[in-house]
Amino acid sequence: MPAPLLPTIDSPDDLRPLSLLQLEQVAAEMREALCHVVSNRTAHFASNLGVVELCLALHTTFDFRRDRLIWDTGHQIYPHKLITGRFRDFASIRTKGGLMGYPNPAESEYDLFVTGHAGSSVSTVLGLKSGDDLLPGQEDRQAVAVIGDGAFPSGIVFEALNNAAFLKKKMIVVLNDNKMSICPRVGGLADYFDRLRMNSLYVGLKTGAAKALTKVPLIGDGMERMFKNTRDAFKAGLHGGMLFEELGIRYVGPIDGHNLGLLKQYLEMCQEAEGPVLLHIVTQKGHGFGPAEEDPVSFHTPAPFQRDGRCVVPVKKSSSKAYTNIASAAIHEQLAANPKVTVLTAAMCQGTNLEKVRDDFPTRFFDVGICESHAVAFAAGQAKAGLRPIVDIYSTFLQRSFDQIFQEVSLQNLPVTFLLDRGGLTGPDGPTHHGVFDIGYMRMFPHMVVMAPGDAADLPAMLDFALKHDAPTSLRYPKAPAETIDRSPAPIELGRAEVLEWGGDGMIVACGTLLTDCVKAAAQLREEGLDVGVINARFIKPLDTETILKAVSTAPFVLTVEEGQLMTGFGSAVLEAANEARLPTANIHRLGIPDAYVEHGERGELLADLGLDATGIAAKCRELAAAALHHDEDLGPAKPAVRRRG
Amino acid sequence: MPAPLLPTIDSPDDLRPLSLLQLEQVAAEMREALCHVVSNRTAHFASNLGVVELCLALHTTFDFRRDRLIWDTGHQIYPHKLITGRFRDFASIRTKGGLMGYPNPAESEYDLFVTGHAGSSVSTVLGLKSGDDLLPGQEDRQAVAVIGDGAFPSGIVFEALNNAAFLKKKMIVVLNDNKMSICPRVGGLADYFDRLRMNSLYVGLKTGAAKALTKVPLIGDGMERMFKNTRDAFKAGLHGGMLFEELGIRYVGPIDGHNLGLLKQYLEMCQEAEGPVLLHIVTQKGHGFGPAEEDPVSFHTPAPFQRDGRCVVPVKKSSSKAYTNIASAAIHEQLAANPKVTVLTAAMCQGTNLEKVRDDFPTRFFDVGICESHAVAFAAGQAKAGLRPIVDIYSTFLQRSFDQIFQEVSLQNLPVTFLLDRGGLTGPDGPTHHGVFDIGYMRMFPHMVVMAPGDAADLPAMLDFALKHDAPTSLRYPKAPAETIDRSPAPIELGRAEVLEWGGDGMIVACGTLLTDCVKAAAQLREEGLDVGVINARFIKPLDTETILKAVSTAPFVLTVEEGQLMTGFGSAVLEAANEARLPTANIHRLGIPDAYVEHGERGELLADLGLDATGIAAKCRELAAAALHHDEDLGPAKPAVRRRG
Repeated sequence: MPAPLLPTIDSPDDLRPLSLLQLEQVAAEMREALCHVVSNRTAHFASNLGVVELCLALHTTFDFRRDRLIWDTGHQIYPHKLITGRFRDFASIRTKGGLMGYPNPAESEYDLFVTGHAGSSVSTVLGLKSGDDLLPGQEDRQAVAVIGDGAFPSGIVFEALNNAAFLKKKMIVVLNDNKMSICPRVGGLADYFDRLRMNSLYVGLKTGAAKALTKVPLIGDGMERMFKNTRDAFKAGLHGGMLFEELGIRYVGPIDGHNLGLLKQYLEMCQEAEGPVLLHIVTQKGHGFGPAEEDPVSFHTPAPFQRDGRCVVPVKKSSSKAYTNIASAAIHEQLAANPKVTVLTAAMCQGTNLEKVRDDFPTRFFDVGICESHAVAFAAGQAKAGLRPIVDIYSTFLQRSFDQIFQEVSLQNLPVTFLLDRGGLTGPDGPTHHGVFDIGYMRMFPHMVVMAPGDAADLPAMLDFALKHDAPTSLRYPKAPAETIDRSPAPIELGRAEVLEWGGDGMIVACGTLLTDCVKAAAQLREEGLDVGVINARFIKPLDTETILKAVSTAPFVLTVEEGQLMTGFGSAVLEAANEARLPTANIHRLGIPDAYVEHGERGELLADLGLDATGIAAKCRELAAAALHHDEDLGPAKPAVRRRG
Repeated sequence: MPAPLLPTIDSPDDLRPLSLLQLEQVAAEMREALCHVVSNRTAHFASNLGVVELCLALHTTFDFRRDRLIWDTGHQIYPHKLITGRFRDFASIRTKGGLMGYPNPAESEYDLFVTGHAGSSVSTVLGLKSGDDLLPGQEDRQAVAVIGDGAFPSGIVFEALNNAAFLKKKMIVVLNDNKMSICPRVGGLADYFDRLRMNSLYVGLKTGAAKALTKVPLIGDGMERMFKNTRDAFKAGLHGGMLFEELGIRYVGPIDGHNLGLLKQYLEMCQEAEGPVLLHIVTQKGHGFGPAEEDPVSFHTPAPFQRDGRCVVPVKKSSSKAYTNIASAAIHEQLAANPKVTVLTAAMCQGTNLEKVRDDFPTRFFDVGICESHAVAFAAGQAKAGLRPIVDIYSTFLQRSFDQIFQEVSLQNLPVTFLLDRGGLTGPDGPTHHGVFDIGYMRMFPHMVVMAPGDAADLPAMLDFALKHDAPTSLRYPKAPAETIDRSPAPIELGRAEVLEWGGDGMIVACGTLLTDCVKAAAQLREEGLDVGVINARFIKPLDTETILKAVSTAPFVLTVEEGQLMTGFGSAVLEAANEARLPTANIHRLGIPDAYVEHGERGELLADLGLDATGIAAKCRELAAAALHHDEDLGPAKPAVRRRG
């Protein structure tokens, strides 16, 4: 066995002297490194295995210290990290303080943008190229975007291609076609890619790359000798890529994306072209690791596993039921009960645990692909026709639909129900995936009812309420194990909070599932002799002003707790309501996410750091109770005279 | 001259008995009605003249009481209104209490969605069709979207077509190609449409429609007799519409969109097709009115004019300089001074008054078309390369970029400067165009500096500040005549408000250009003996807590004034800051837009209704001063002991 090469690669410069055979050895070692780290923790896996050769080909063809490279979405960045000076730290990936699972300019000059949302690479690369061309002496910097076929249907990609064709900028878009989004890919474009792969050119490449190379119609080089122009190529049946060619983007491919030599040849050829080129490569998600090749959906972000020959054994049972599962079970129940209910998702069928819903209600399940803007306008159309659509999308990805939530739903006052999964800190994915803005962006819209279940019992009841309410509704819940508070839950009523207990020393008003931590904090405090009550807000809008303002006007302190940005958030809604009622607000304190981005790490770690766990909430209450007492003694009037237990 | 027909048309039912000749008479009368009303006020004009025949063809081929019709964007809805029972009220269009200039379900069952933002028609029509197909007995309802070539490049259109091809829903998308967006159209798709128009089929149609009809390849009817399949058509050089065909959308056309008989024939033919069909029609923006045909940009929404034969004479001079003009002059100055400054807009070159900037700095001016999402990510790329891009987009349309402002700009902390034109109530366009959410949606993002100039003097200085600040910045200003407050303006400093005057009886904190009304109100109050001061907030974030909280802790009342939603807005930011500083907030009062959509009307009328003009602000101050006095007498402690003039 030859000496390992990967540990000697400190930067892509160290790859350039290597032979093709040695590069293939590096590829094998990269796969091994990926298998090793990913078998130890949940991380993106199959997509990374698929781009190992592409990554090596790119870094040995270009110099991305100077040239520009964006990996769209960024979940397939691992091979790139392994060869850009981060091999030694690789074991830390997706852990707090360690490497991010996405590109991060703070880690390396080879990462240009922190990304995580799909589809913006073509725009940013076009911007980079456009910028370089305007700056003296920078015109030679080349620009490459790598984008998967799952991200490709995202509208912004089409907008960017349309603009790139107009500006005629020299840039390469590598379409990494692995027939997959996170879930199996859907849409007209998906069928189109399938047809492209079937054409004779690709088949030819599989058997004889060098021969096929001469068949690619590419302006300005010798590749045209077989066919004088595109129409001649058509006549021969090689009308590949007309969708892009018609738009003004030169199309090349498809070629085998696991053939390193071929990839390098084609990338060099694309470098020669003027204007934007789309290089279509075909890869296999999970390539080189049998179980992942066979089940790329499960191996998109698999739970930790042990390798047992070619088989894998999960090393831990999946944790207790998550809020996502409670939601999908509730959705299933609603679809079963009411033929007017539909559910829409955006390529997150697995992440939202909707596979059973899809299988049991195929005509009322709609996966539109990574097209959140369309998803919402599409749902609005369904609602207008008389259906009751549920839009089940992660909080952070639903940001893509801000304008459709405004125009197509809120302005029309249509009964679309938004389920915002991953509402709050999502953990190891980091800031692109934390869902922390939705409380503000939902509550600013007229007509919108904005909710957050306090626990697992609230969630199905709230969905049921939402689907009976004749206006737009939204509810958010985190990526977290579901918990249930031991009580007989009050029914969900519009704008009505649930008082768990009044407390004479202070009140916590919890927005969302941090409620369970608030209850734990209150229990702890009670043992210490502090009588702190807890309210389950349930509604962010309309706010239960009666209940919450009673707390504001009677409790020594009111602590609002939310898993979202404080600016524009739930606490602000409480301040607005108190101010509207002309109540003093000095006893209101707000706990949530400050005005900064929260890094990656386990959700529990991140919440603890922010004081948003039971310990932090209890500590804050102690501090506030002490200050109120102090204030009480010093200043008399600030502490309300009336204390009541409801 | 035959008796007028249009006044007899109460609904499309009345059109059906008419002959083609009579329908052409109706078309001429509709054009006359359009000319009449539009010569009296600023309104959408050229685009409406262009779709008269299409509108008649649609309403005589379908029954849109039952079938589904969406006019994308909706500014070309006038002919549709004229024949759906709104002829008699037509003179009221775009006036307060009158007809909207956009579709409005409250006016007519023939209008399905209130729209104004471009590109969502294909999604909503697909949703409507999908909904009808799921509801018993509704499957026969047909579905039509009409979308202009300007709106077509919007990413959501591509997302919707991709989904439509997958779902294979029977629907017709009419591409109304008039070679124009609002400004001349740009992008690869624009070139593509140009090429399509050049092909022999279209030329053929111009001379002999019936003959050409037989050439259209359409599945499932006799149209295929000329060519056995699409590839045969290619070979004959008729490879029209491959971009759409490749995606799985049947393409038909292009045909002459002013030939009523031909339009009806083709629409009937499209009705026969299974699955989604795109019918490409070519129209002339401004058709039938010479001056508008010749200058469709100026006649998109012309100022009132008198007809003088075929010439037009403006009936009033354009009003005093608008904030938009101040902004475009400042942009011009910045581009002249710094070669790193670029400016991006989204098909609003005229609306943002950037035509001179475009002409003088063609390499640093970028109109990306109606593609706001791309515009922002593209700008982020430029900023990363070292440029200083200015993104000049209307507040309401920038909503399309919410996610890109988050990921590509704020998260990366890149120095992109957002100029939000139409920040506030825009007037006759109504709720789709009011820019009322941006204060909330901008300030929730970390790193973002959020500003609003108080008057015309602040604007260029603020842009200069923004372009020197090494982080994302935004500033908003309304569609309104520019005003300047007579003072020596304090220089713009990060997070620093400008105190115009301290007042012993109360303080107004103005966010944005309502400042001038606040100053007028204060002057009026002073005459009445009330000493109310005024602060020009300038910064929404970071807020000048020192200055504003001084007012909060010393003034009998503090009135925040903003032209935007109160929920999550500027006043909430003040509440958050005061609460953070543990100050009492009962003396803070917030004036702005309540939690409801504001109708259309002149901006002044709408502001007055909301109490957001000088009269309303003064009245509010009187009320607050009286209440503070009352409170003072009754309750002592609530009124601060210290009053100061700064």
